[in-house]
Amino acid sequence: MVYEDVNFSTLCDFYELTMGNGYFQTGIGDRISYFDVFFRNVPDGGGFAIAAGLEQAIDYIQKLKFTERDIQYLRSKGCFSEEFLKYLTDFKFTGDIWAVPEGTPIFPGEPILTVRAPAIQAQFVETFLLLVLNHQSLIATKSNRIVRAAQGRPVSEFGSRRAQGTWGAVLGARASYIAGCASTACVMADRDYHVPASGTMAHSWVQMFDDEYTAFKTYCEVYPNDATLLVDTYNVLKSGVPNAIRAFKEVLLPKGITKCAIRMDSGDLCYLSKKARAMLDAAGLTECRIVASNSLDEYIIQDLLQQGAKIDAFGVGERLITSKSEPVFGGVYKLAAVENEQGELIPKIKISENPAKITNPHFKKVYRLFENDTGKAIADLICLHDEVIDDSQPLEIFDPDATWKRKTLTNYTARELLVPIFQNGKCVYRTPSITEIRAYCSAQIDLLWDEVKRFENPHNYYVDLSQKLWDIKHEMLSAKKGALH
Amino acid sequence: MVYEDVNFSTLCDFYELTMGNGYFQTGIGDRISYFDVFFRNVPDGGGFAIAAGLEQAIDYIQKLKFTERDIQYLRSKGCFSEEFLKYLTDFKFTGDIWAVPEGTPIFPGEPILTVRAPAIQAQFVETFLLLVLNHQSLIATKSNRIVRAAQGRPVSEFGSRRAQGTWGAVLGARASYIAGCASTACVMADRDYHVPASGTMAHSWVQMFDDEYTAFKTYCEVYPNDATLLVDTYNVLKSGVPNAIRAFKEVLLPKGITKCAIRMDSGDLCYLSKKARAMLDAAGLTECRIVASNSLDEYIIQDLLQQGAKIDAFGVGERLITSKSEPVFGGVYKLAAVENEQGELIPKIKISENPAKITNPHFKKVYRLFENDTGKAIADLICLHDEVIDDSQPLEIFDPDATWKRKTLTNYTARELLVPIFQNGKCVYRTPSITEIRAYCSAQIDLLWDEVKRFENPHNYYVDLSQKLWDIKHEMLSAKKGALH
Repeated sequence: MVYEDVNFSTLCDFYELTMGNGYFQTGIGDRISYFDVFFRNVPDGGGFAIAAGLEQAIDYIQKLKFTERDIQYLRSKGCFSEEFLKYLTDFKFTGDIWAVPEGTPIFPGEPILTVRAPAIQAQFVETFLLLVLNHQSLIATKSNRIVRAAQGRPVSEFGSRRAQGTWGAVLGARASYIAGCASTACVMADRDYHVPASGTMAHSWVQMFDDEYTAFKTYCEVYPNDATLLVDTYNVLKSGVPNAIRAFKEVLLPKGITKCAIRMDSGDLCYLSKKARAMLDAAGLTECRIVASNSLDEYIIQDLLQQGAKIDAFGVGERLITSKSEPVFGGVYKLAAVENEQGELIPKIKISENPAKITNPHFKKVYRLFENDTGKAIADLICLHDEVIDDSQPLEIFDPDATWKRKTLTNYTARELLVPIFQNGKCVYRTPSITEIRAYCSAQIDLLWDEVKRFENPHNYYVDLSQKLWDIKHEMLSAKKGALH
Repeated sequence: MVYEDVNFSTLCDFYELTMGNGYFQTGIGDRISYFDVFFRNVPDGGGFAIAAGLEQAIDYIQKLKFTERDIQYLRSKGCFSEEFLKYLTDFKFTGDIWAVPEGTPIFPGEPILTVRAPAIQAQFVETFLLLVLNHQSLIATKSNRIVRAAQGRPVSEFGSRRAQGTWGAVLGARASYIAGCASTACVMADRDYHVPASGTMAHSWVQMFDDEYTAFKTYCEVYPNDATLLVDTYNVLKSGVPNAIRAFKEVLLPKGITKCAIRMDSGDLCYLSKKARAMLDAAGLTECRIVASNSLDEYIIQDLLQQGAKIDAFGVGERLITSKSEPVFGGVYKLAAVENEQGELIPKIKISENPAKITNPHFKKVYRLFENDTGKAIADLICLHDEVIDDSQPLEIFDPDATWKRKTLTNYTARELLVPIFQNGKCVYRTPSITEIRAYCSAQIDLLWDEVKRFENPHNYYVDLSQKLWDIKHEMLSAKKGALH
């Protein structure tokens, strides 16, 4: 029995069910409804986020089912009609879903997933879809920042012990790998999601032996081809590094093995790594790598490298696996349209006194526009679902908040971002392997300008509305405003 | 198939297994070892934390088992001996565990769980024990802060959509309930862990109907006894509250129902709640409660109440379920002692250049000392495992960092904090019901002085070492220091 076998149908907010029961009793349960998932702010003030979690969302939709035990439990709550409980017995998802592939860079305000389904179904899947997309997009986004800070040096995820629960550990490792981490410490993430697992030793290994040298020597004897020795149990420079050098020389070099490593998990990593590097080099161990860990994140790594720290690889734990500096990815799920009995689309809008919280109405799609000369992404354009961008023709785009800011594009390529995932309840999407997702993610990030990727004050990537969508939105806002005053 | 059926044996750091294989090959795999779980800092600068997660730790230990699939997977890694893989086939936990019951207030530096087991086993369980204890203690600690800020008003947890994964949502809801939340939105947490679920409506309910009044009227008709109307889809004071009043008066009052509620999820909650209260009261709806939500935490709630907000209940999401302001609980798992072949205890210590990271060696126990006059907790005392505090006798305690600060206690009661959980691999602990844990938690927090409970600069509760333990620790430090210089 593995994790993936769990049926998470009851992992929903209670109100999805009370509303479902209400839609059912009011006779609008089958009204075709359109919901968008989007987010409002990139964590850590970054210039972009990375979409992840779709594979688990698909798995959830396919497994949706209320068991007899679930129905009995719901009946015991005393607020659901028997007819609705009967309906839930046969519940399955029969609608359509479009989504951006995992690993895609995403920006605030644009739909990253759209559901079209009967009202009860479309409402019901809200909690879980948000949960998986928010969690993995959060960790992928954070991990990629850390990976970029490491400038090509491998980053290993090893935060399981500080993760927010088991799924946080295992699927967090998955998201971190998609975003460029080289490996994880989490065995289950390797077994079930093919994230390569690796690991070395804890302080307890060193303490378990009578002295540090014996601990190191023993480890080299057991793992001559993969010996990374943890050198800070007692004192890095006075004890750890000298004992490691002695163990490498006595056990590995006679076998002709020159590849080895030390790890430092405390103290001034910049200073210690420089000193350790000099000691290792003086001992002829120039191929011995230095691995650093201890509450690292993108800022500390950037700082260490800027100061010339002699670190070849990083292990990152709690600050990655919880996205400590900003542990919430604020994806929301908002009604965008319903179909009336004639099958006509009726756009819906959520108004707020906070303009940033006003939604984009209607059934939509998103184009990403690339400059042909450089291949770089220029802007995303949110359109009505039936608009078609012909990229052989010039295209005028404008800032939806400052509509006088206009720009006409020529020599560009338009690519639709969302792809069909479910059609009439059937999955029509081939989920790529995690290696494919990881490669796609890296390639897509390469298509962003450096200005979008920097940590401090990144360029605000353009997410524009088509003229048609803008007109509909502003017509609706004016009408609602009129009704309220 | 429910969540609890998952076997998490492979949810471990890879190094637990490489070290295990190393202990095995070196012939010290069965050496009896003692590990302590403890933490160093209370999140959010608080005065105490709350222990939670033991139930899931027990469940994990009882289910430990490597399947044939696991063994094949491990073999494919190419670094484990066949003898060790054979050993893992029959792997189970045969040792002893002591722990503080869930809901106990805990303080930095003291063992909250101690494992005594053969080295391979004791090492292996590190990752998962830390994961479950760290996660639930984090959420319990944060939730209790929020509950205390609400000063008796019910707090409902509804953060599933922003939780870090499914376990974060479900077990986070469990931890929040232990710590005093009144309910959760998470259905699965109710079904599987008996945390009462509740919920009302989303903005989509309001948008799904032609107008707000129809949406409210319909909801009151379906749920006359539990009508909480969300009043901020369009405009709280101009539309939401007037429509709610009309729906209550037209649907509920004729049925003789006076209990109802409105919820506000945006805007200035203090101002809006006062205005809404006045409007509801003027309409005779004095029993209509006002529920507030929208990125709340203990500080915002404290502020709202201080400004006289007319709020009767709070819904708290992302900032509770991720402990957003400090999303990591830093519990660690450190070797404290081993037994030699004669069964004698050899204490072990981890030294660090950072004094706060030096561990307390030896097999230990913890007493909590209560003042008899008030019943309040005065200090915790960490002793050697075989020390006995006779509370009919005066007891001198002292600050382990400033040993001249001494105090002699009389008229006190000493209670051991850790209780036996496993003996020789058998669970000897009856896990209390969640209601019992919640009541115990509340009662134990009542035994802390208010000075320990305040948010800003709380009193630093005393966690002292017995003279014997202090002597052993300092002897070991001096010996190690000598060896290093």
